[in-house]
Amino acid sequence: MKLYFAPNSRAVRIAWLLEELGLDYDLERFQLGQPEMRAPDYLNVHPMGRVPALQDGDTVMFESGAIIQYILARHAKGRLQPSEDSAEFPIYLQWFHYCEGMVMPPMNSIVVETILLPPDRRSEVHARRATKLLGQMLVAIEQRLEGRDYLVDDFTAADIMTGHACLMSGRVGVDLSALPNIRAYNARLAERPALVRALAL
Amino acid sequence: MKLYFAPNSRAVRIAWLLEELGLDYDLERFQLGQPEMRAPDYLNVHPMGRVPALQDGDTVMFESGAIIQYILARHAKGRLQPSEDSAEFPIYLQWFHYCEGMVMPPMNSIVVETILLPPDRRSEVHARRATKLLGQMLVAIEQRLEGRDYLVDDFTAADIMTGHACLMSGRVGVDLSALPNIRAYNARLAERPALVRALAL
Repeated sequence: MKLYFAPNSRAVRIAWLLEELGLDYDLERFQLGQPEMRAPDYLNVHPMGRVPALQDGDTVMFESGAIIQYILARHAKGRLQPSEDSAEFPIYLQWFHYCEGMVMPPMNSIVVETILLPPDRRSEVHARRATKLLGQMLVAIEQRLEGRDYLVDDFTAADIMTGHACLMSGRVGVDLSALPNIRAYNARLAERPALVRALAL
Repeated sequence: MKLYFAPNSRAVRIAWLLEELGLDYDLERFQLGQPEMRAPDYLNVHPMGRVPALQDGDTVMFESGAIIQYILARHAKGRLQPSEDSAEFPIYLQWFHYCEGMVMPPMNSIVVETILLPPDRRSEVHARRATKLLGQMLVAIEQRLEGRDYLVDDFTAADIMTGHACLMSGRVGVDLSALPNIRAYNARLAERPALVRALAL
């Protein structure tokens, strides 16, 4: 497998998963914003020039959630997700999808308004609204983590998706002081050797 | 199964799926913005008081993508998605996740800036930026639909997720005049009896 990767992007999720599973992979490494990501060669891989994308034999695909579900189905032998007939399976799916459905839209807005836009085009109103919304989305995670180490029982791919979003929340400056379960969760995730390796790529 | 539903929401996706599969379900019907969606009873079902949510026996879950994948795994007998070992499976996953990963974030911004916010708090700059971004996200779908009736081969649940977002794009006023494949796709989806029934709920 070949992973199209950039640090500080959703591609970290895929590297983290591959490291957790101990799978071999090659890395095509970009920096976010690098012109090579908009070159025709790469636009054949991802039509908007984004990361992650994955090549596995003849298969080329993008979307981090899709790539994770693909790798789990084809290469994980049942690891990192509950079996489909278990009571945990729907809960696992819920927290897997919660990442892009609920957490990432306000996160994207914060990144746009505080990092991507030139300072004279940023909107403080918009950034504040997104930060407030993100805080609300994190409260449900905070409640879910009460008495739990991970979102389901054992560590699963839902922790890679939504856990990565929790880690990002701290890094974009969201105030986590009233969210002790998320702070402990982030610390727990940050100690996982697979994530340490993915973050060093 | 009981579906917590409101018209003009992502809950239409779940009703559409259930109708496509011919499954029985009960409906708990709200209107978006109705105070009952913030009542303690419903906050026990969905911590942010949103729709859709699904109850199936002892299982209660939310997130439209998660609910669809759950129903497919438990109740669809292999219908509406390619088998995991097929070449279409990763492509199916990609377009399934493309909906919330790429299309819905700018869509959400457009709905906020043109419908949800009171007029004096709306930002035309922000609405225009979201409309431009949504247009870019639709171009990849336009290209994918060249020579195809649906995103994969036959109609799949990826068409329920991302197809619903394409239908919404037209309804929030995105200019589809340069996207003939999406216009034809939307017309094709709108003729499906299961969607007609879901939209009438």
